[in-house]
Amino acid sequence: MRIEKALRSAAEAGLDGLLLTPGPDLTYFTGLRPPITERLTLLVLRNGHDPFLIVPALEEPHGLDLEVRTWPDGEDPYDVSLTGRFAISDSAWALHVLNLQRKCPELSLVGMTEVLPMLRAVKDAEEIELLAEAGAAADRAFEDIRTVRFSGRTEREVAVILAGMLREYGHEQVDFTIVGSGPNGANPHHEIGDRVIETGDMVVLDFGGLKNGYGSDTTRTVHVGPPTSEEQEVHDVVRLAQQAAFEAVRPGVECQEIDRVARRVIEDAGYGEFFIHRTGHGIGLETHEPPYLVRGETRPLVPGMCFSIEPGIYLPGRFGVRIEDIVTVTPDGGRRFNNTDRYLSSVL
Amino acid sequence: MRIEKALRSAAEAGLDGLLLTPGPDLTYFTGLRPPITERLTLLVLRNGHDPFLIVPALEEPHGLDLEVRTWPDGEDPYDVSLTGRFAISDSAWALHVLNLQRKCPELSLVGMTEVLPMLRAVKDAEEIELLAEAGAAADRAFEDIRTVRFSGRTEREVAVILAGMLREYGHEQVDFTIVGSGPNGANPHHEIGDRVIETGDMVVLDFGGLKNGYGSDTTRTVHVGPPTSEEQEVHDVVRLAQQAAFEAVRPGVECQEIDRVARRVIEDAGYGEFFIHRTGHGIGLETHEPPYLVRGETRPLVPGMCFSIEPGIYLPGRFGVRIEDIVTVTPDGGRRFNNTDRYLSSVL
Repeated sequence: MRIEKALRSAAEAGLDGLLLTPGPDLTYFTGLRPPITERLTLLVLRNGHDPFLIVPALEEPHGLDLEVRTWPDGEDPYDVSLTGRFAISDSAWALHVLNLQRKCPELSLVGMTEVLPMLRAVKDAEEIELLAEAGAAADRAFEDIRTVRFSGRTEREVAVILAGMLREYGHEQVDFTIVGSGPNGANPHHEIGDRVIETGDMVVLDFGGLKNGYGSDTTRTVHVGPPTSEEQEVHDVVRLAQQAAFEAVRPGVECQEIDRVARRVIEDAGYGEFFIHRTGHGIGLETHEPPYLVRGETRPLVPGMCFSIEPGIYLPGRFGVRIEDIVTVTPDGGRRFNNTDRYLSSVL
Repeated sequence: MRIEKALRSAAEAGLDGLLLTPGPDLTYFTGLRPPITERLTLLVLRNGHDPFLIVPALEEPHGLDLEVRTWPDGEDPYDVSLTGRFAISDSAWALHVLNLQRKCPELSLVGMTEVLPMLRAVKDAEEIELLAEAGAAADRAFEDIRTVRFSGRTEREVAVILAGMLREYGHEQVDFTIVGSGPNGANPHHEIGDRVIETGDMVVLDFGGLKNGYGSDTTRTVHVGPPTSEEQEVHDVVRLAQQAAFEAVRPGVECQEIDRVARRVIEDAGYGEFFIHRTGHGIGLETHEPPYLVRGETRPLVPGMCFSIEPGIYLPGRFGVRIEDIVTVTPDGGRRFNNTDRYLSSVL
């Protein structure tokens, strides 16, 4: 099913076929997760031909519903006699690209996301279920972390505890546990530091990873002790921006419209210059992938797309607030995979 | 220093320069460990020109002793006007390779290890110190794990304990903790399973990762309870093969000679057909990298090279034995970074 659909998209984009290498593209079509190495593993999809997988003999997979062509160490696996215009996985190694070009002079390669950015963007029912489960696990980690004492701990200590909770709730891989306290929260590229968290701090918690191969990514901003009225106001603005963007989700709306709606709420409240990043990114086998909710992205939302909605306000040298849920597009509107309280939590 | 040396090697190989992308190559020359993403980060080294680093504006590094050229989101970073023959990092993304080729029609790219396999093979004093420390940490983990009860635990349980010890002794990344008990030890590609270890089992323990960015990789084979005379004999043969190979290390000897020496000992004992892999691989910023100690590798050992020596005997369906140390070449011969007992340990 996925292969047929991808080949139809490829033909519409003027391609003769697709070359997929280890990483999310290959996993998407075969379920395989081979090591990413100097040995060529390549799935070849062509319109009008049966698909086949080139794979090192040492790593021959079994039970695949497609032709497997193994090659032993010492042989040249690149002489695949391909001709025409093929898209190749963005993250395919240079070593493999250059050897394919050398051995197949009639082969013209283009980057996958340049011609088929939405290859994996529309998720099927099984993928949506896995993303929902990953989101629920991240939510459980947030419920636990907000019962932990923050004041007196460093950001790094909180991050380690949070990573342990993500693993406890079934993440096999933790990709990021951002803890941005006080002024660190005002830098959206801050990850973790050795700053000791104090009463009175806003703390941005942005965390996620992979559970059963699919991504989680959620952000909540908590406050250590009671917030000031300004802190409460900034948090309210971000929450309302996130809510408005969520309510704008429906099939046919341009990706950039979700960004515009979130930005409008923050601008109207007078904080426009402090919302300094795009509103969201797709998620699936990777925690960042198309579609991107960003100005200029005019492609329409389609049922099954899954992405973050994560507006923020960053007051330099003072504090930051971000609220993020993963959302999927249904025929009737958006559905959230993160459902913890979006109001400002006070922590100890 | 590293840049000048690399450019001399490049000129000798008929190259105009080198293009290094995030991963071990870029870390080697700059100390940077940027994320590996769709945004171009590229270190350009050319004979007769100053080096420069192309980097996304969001990730601008500070304190580097070379020119940094940032590019903002939305701009095309590929128009670098390069001409001539350049080697590019093996693991550079296809996306970047194809865009460089499109924007620089006079640029001819070749894969790094195809023209300069020994780019990072000869380590300097600082790297040797880091590899020695990583080896010592792995040794401490082995000293601890052999005091643990094996019988009644699954391979997976032992592997989890061992991984925890590697982290406790300073590894920031655990790459593999192979536990091959009984017949599983006879398959050198076996990693971990749910087999319950029993008294009478041989158990191959092969483990390593990164400590302060540099790799460890050591193997010891232990026996649960007292070994049979055959088990003891096979272990003795592997130990003597490993020792002979170690003693053959000195500058100027061909890499394949180390493999030949180890293999000869095992063949002479009548087990030649059961030693089914190469004798070793280089180690540094990666746990597997050139030089490879394998038949056909005629390049000579050079002081500062660091690699594994890891002969083994694998008796199908019965048991396996492997002994592995990381060794560096000094002007006077080999020096081991792993120094735990190489005799057969009995464990509980």
